[in-house]
Amino acid sequence: MRYLHLKKSPGHHILLLFHLKINEIQKKIANFALRDKECVIRSEQCNTQMQFTVAQIAAMVGGSIEGNPEAMVSAFAKIEEGHPGAISFLANEKYTHHIYTTGSTAVLVSRDFKPEHPLETTLIRVDDPYSTVASLLEMVAKIVEPSPIGIEQPCFIAEGVEIPEDAYIGAFAYIGKGVRLGKGVKLYPQTYVGENSEIGDGTVLKPGVKVYHGCKIGARCVLHSGVVIGGDGFGFAPHDGHYHKIPQLGNVEIADDVEIGANTTVDRAVMGSTRIGRGTKLDNLIQIAHNCSVGSDTVMAAQAGVAGSTHIGSSCMIGGQVGFAGHIKVGDNVQIGAQSGIPADVPDNAKVMGYPAVDYPTFARTTIHLKNLGDLYTRVRNLEKSNKKNSKDNEPTHS
Amino acid sequence: MRYLHLKKSPGHHILLLFHLKINEIQKKIANFALRDKECVIRSEQCNTQMQFTVAQIAAMVGGSIEGNPEAMVSAFAKIEEGHPGAISFLANEKYTHHIYTTGSTAVLVSRDFKPEHPLETTLIRVDDPYSTVASLLEMVAKIVEPSPIGIEQPCFIAEGVEIPEDAYIGAFAYIGKGVRLGKGVKLYPQTYVGENSEIGDGTVLKPGVKVYHGCKIGARCVLHSGVVIGGDGFGFAPHDGHYHKIPQLGNVEIADDVEIGANTTVDRAVMGSTRIGRGTKLDNLIQIAHNCSVGSDTVMAAQAGVAGSTHIGSSCMIGGQVGFAGHIKVGDNVQIGAQSGIPADVPDNAKVMGYPAVDYPTFARTTIHLKNLGDLYTRVRNLEKSNKKNSKDNEPTHS
Amino acid sequence: MRYLHLKKSPGHHILLLFHLKINEIQKKIANFALRDKECVIRSEQCNTQMQFTVAQIAAMVGGSIEGNPEAMVSAFAKIEEGHPGAISFLANEKYTHHIYTTGSTAVLVSRDFKPEHPLETTLIRVDDPYSTVASLLEMVAKIVEPSPIGIEQPCFIAEGVEIPEDAYIGAFAYIGKGVRLGKGVKLYPQTYVGENSEIGDGTVLKPGVKVYHGCKIGARCVLHSGVVIGGDGFGFAPHDGHYHKIPQLGNVEIADDVEIGANTTVDRAVMGSTRIGRGTKLDNLIQIAHNCSVGSDTVMAAQAGVAGSTHIGSSCMIGGQVGFAGHIKVGDNVQIGAQSGIPADVPDNAKVMGYPAVDYPTFARTTIHLKNLGDLYTRVRNLEKSNKKNSKDNEPTHS
Repeated sequence: MRYLHLKKSPGHHILLLFHLKINEIQKKIANFALRDKECVIRSEQCNTQMQFTVAQIAAMVGGSIEGNPEAMVSAFAKIEEGHPGAISFLANEKYTHHIYTTGSTAVLVSRDFKPEHPLETTLIRVDDPYSTVASLLEMVAKIVEPSPIGIEQPCFIAEGVEIPEDAYIGAFAYIGKGVRLGKGVKLYPQTYVGENSEIGDGTVLKPGVKVYHGCKIGARCVLHSGVVIGGDGFGFAPHDGHYHKIPQLGNVEIADDVEIGANTTVDRAVMGSTRIGRGTKLDNLIQIAHNCSVGSDTVMAAQAGVAGSTHIGSSCMIGGQVGFAGHIKVGDNVQIGAQSGIPADVPDNAKVMGYPAVDYPTFARTTIHLKNLGDLYTRVRNLEKSNKKNSKDNEPTHS
Repeated sequence: MRYLHLKKSPGHHILLLFHLKINEIQKKIANFALRDKECVIRSEQCNTQMQFTVAQIAAMVGGSIEGNPEAMVSAFAKIEEGHPGAISFLANEKYTHHIYTTGSTAVLVSRDFKPEHPLETTLIRVDDPYSTVASLLEMVAKIVEPSPIGIEQPCFIAEGVEIPEDAYIGAFAYIGKGVRLGKGVKLYPQTYVGENSEIGDGTVLKPGVKVYHGCKIGARCVLHSGVVIGGDGFGFAPHDGHYHKIPQLGNVEIADDVEIGANTTVDRAVMGSTRIGRGTKLDNLIQIAHNCSVGSDTVMAAQAGVAGSTHIGSSCMIGGQVGFAGHIKVGDNVQIGAQSGIPADVPDNAKVMGYPAVDYPTFARTTIHLKNLGDLYTRVRNLEKSNKKNSKDNEPTHS
Repeated sequence: MRYLHLKKSPGHHILLLFHLKINEIQKKIANFALRDKECVIRSEQCNTQMQFTVAQIAAMVGGSIEGNPEAMVSAFAKIEEGHPGAISFLANEKYTHHIYTTGSTAVLVSRDFKPEHPLETTLIRVDDPYSTVASLLEMVAKIVEPSPIGIEQPCFIAEGVEIPEDAYIGAFAYIGKGVRLGKGVKLYPQTYVGENSEIGDGTVLKPGVKVYHGCKIGARCVLHSGVVIGGDGFGFAPHDGHYHKIPQLGNVEIADDVEIGANTTVDRAVMGSTRIGRGTKLDNLIQIAHNCSVGSDTVMAAQAGVAGSTHIGSSCMIGGQVGFAGHIKVGDNVQIGAQSGIPADVPDNAKVMGYPAVDYPTFARTTIHLKNLGDLYTRVRNLEKSNKKNSKDNEPTHS
């Protein structure tokens, strides 16, 4: 009966399909919306020089050991791809069964983990294995990542610029007149900091970063290679069929704890400032146009682009290749699926996707409807045929 | 009656909606299509060192003063966001009421402006306040923007290259053999100009620009940081499952008065030239492939991409993130909405949008139709139900 | 009759239209999917200094001459745009008629070409004119393209780094501690190679390329200006509303014979490696996120973006501006149309397009259906009207 009913009512069928699909699609969207934010531990041999005993690691993370404290660990690996010399972690119950067969030398587990089978690996018990891995990665990073200091020659430092004692100025770096540098800044080789710009404490400009004149970068920021801060905004006034450049007299101001990915560009304002808020993270190859602002703690994936004078709120998650029109306002806590086009304001807490963007459920529904559009044409044709037949059938009745 | 009619004819309803929406959407499209071309004056404190009296500004713009000629002006501000020390302008009647309450020290107004209430601000009367602001910005820019001159060391200048007296060659700039430099060129630090390339009079290469060998850049061009001119076109011949590089023996030729945004790339031709026409403005992160040409006075917003051998006309306005297929021809005066995909030729004066792109009204209509697609499915289902019912109702009539 | 049938059955009409369109659209897609891979020979004067006699060219390509062996050739041109001093080729029968009127001095033809009219041009007969042109371009490139050697000053070479005798190290290049350089490497000016990285034999880094520490580039690779290899992956853990950086301790490994276009970015893995396979060609402004892998002999057009931990197979052809979600798997021999969004796994040999992507025929069909959506609304409205009318008509019958 139910089956017949479904067959007779294609709409219902679509609805079921749609409910199934919504979940699937929303998962995909979430996946699609942001590049990997998780701590992905892969099985390949780590290229760092880390070499620790299990006892050393347990000491670093405040963990207790069950097994061999003298075992050597030199790499991270997923628990299901473990190998000798690797350390893994178990944070998600559905991976628990792997702990009995993992090849890893050690596994970080929670304090209340109760093995139900014998174990070959050594356990390091900690309060929260997931966040412990993140801390552990940081500690290892401090040991194995290069952290240069001092001034390499040749570099260009304009007269009067003070270089803090603990700074790194790489070879071929250029520091213009009136530049102010915070404590512990690292200007890698071939970076450029234009006149009167300011780089905050502990901020790192990776090789080749360019900061135009008059810009302000906060403390503890990381700007990756190829980033351009303060290039002229795209401002031209049409006049007699030609375009006349409007001078871009503003600047860029980047708050503390911002990270900006390789080859991303943030244009200077025509007047006032283009602003990136505290703790915001921009991925690679992003465009932020003049007079835009992005709030704090917003993450934006690669190749997104924001047109002029658009304001994006705080704590947003913006997918890759998203495009924003100019002069619009996007609220706080907004989530935007990859490749979306945002032509108009978006309210706080909205989750949107598509070109032009609509809310997630509408996008998912439209996707399904589009898929079935061929069927719909067929159904309408059938209705037309049957209509024609009915008209004929009716004719003799009336005649 | 009319209301009933509307209710009975959903198509009509859609049509109304559609007319309303067309305007709205076309506004959005216009907004979306191009990043801010207007002179946006923001209220934030200007970071430049400008400091002028009202009398000085009036002299610069040929205006007449009503108020205090000695008042100091040090920033630009929107009239509705005026503050002491700022100058604003009034060019649009709908903002007129702000002039009576603005905090700005001075306001540029047209010669025939007649105040209807008392004013606290000082007026500077000019022929055309809007274009005056643009000129004023330019004059200020000449005063406050850095304009270096001379040769900084170390830089690399190949034997035989002549450096014009009024040029600027920044530290770590590299100038290859056979390069010709026009009068007043500015090659900022870390720029690269390959063998036999030519840079026209007054052209500026911002820090880190790379121009490969054999390319020609016209006069008065500005190339922003990270721009790459003359990289190899993406040309590979498939052979036995591998790709064989096709040497790219052509070059890039850029005409006069072109501006190119940060990190934009223009590939060299396989033979002949990839060409950018006079007065054309390219925004940031754009890709122009080998053997393309772009006409004169065309503006292209950020992250647009043009595949190989495509020709784009003059006086076009192209939105951000638009993609062009290869080997197509786009006419003159064409307008293309942001994120559009252009798979085929576009005639002169067309206004298109979408993926694939269609004319604006069709795009707007399809957007509305897509939004109502769920309803359409319901309506078709209802027709099917009623059809089934009708068939049954008819059956006894015939039996 | 047939005509009537067509008129009565709009569905059939659509179907015909659709078959016509499929071919057209698939051609467009193929066009759209990849930037020009063919050897495009343009008529403009070549900017290289090539100057050869027909006899020299025939010797270079193993061809036999019919005509004047002493004629001078200094440029390439399409056969239909030939001019004195140019060499053209005839590989496609449909261009055969041009050979009788071409202005070119010489034409490469196949050994079995039989002229049916008198010829003015000189023939060079070869086994395969198409592939001969590619070889000829390469031979010419070796002669006319700059190929520097030696060490320019100033450059920065860390203590202990060995520079192979036949290498080129441009001015302002930076080579960190522990870097290993293969034979014949060319590090152009302003390049950066971080600590412990490795550059394979014959690999070329064009001006300004940045390779972070610990990365491996294979042999015979070409990295164009602005390429960034090994920037940090976009990995942040949300914590109390802020994002906490996850150290990116992995690296990038690029196999042999890879070419990477200007301003493309390949991020280092969080652990393990981001990998680009042998013979793969990436165009300009592409983003490859951390822990991705791309197989061998895959070509990817400009501005495509791949989110984290996604694996793309071998021998794929990926169009411009395509976006891939993270953590998905794309098979071998996959073709993806430009601007597509790939939210989920794609099986081997699939040809997909759209946002989200579907197989080519479905995309083409949906495009047509979308175009006719206005008609469909009208047809449904007509059905509703006629239904209403029928209901009324039927009512009196039953009363």
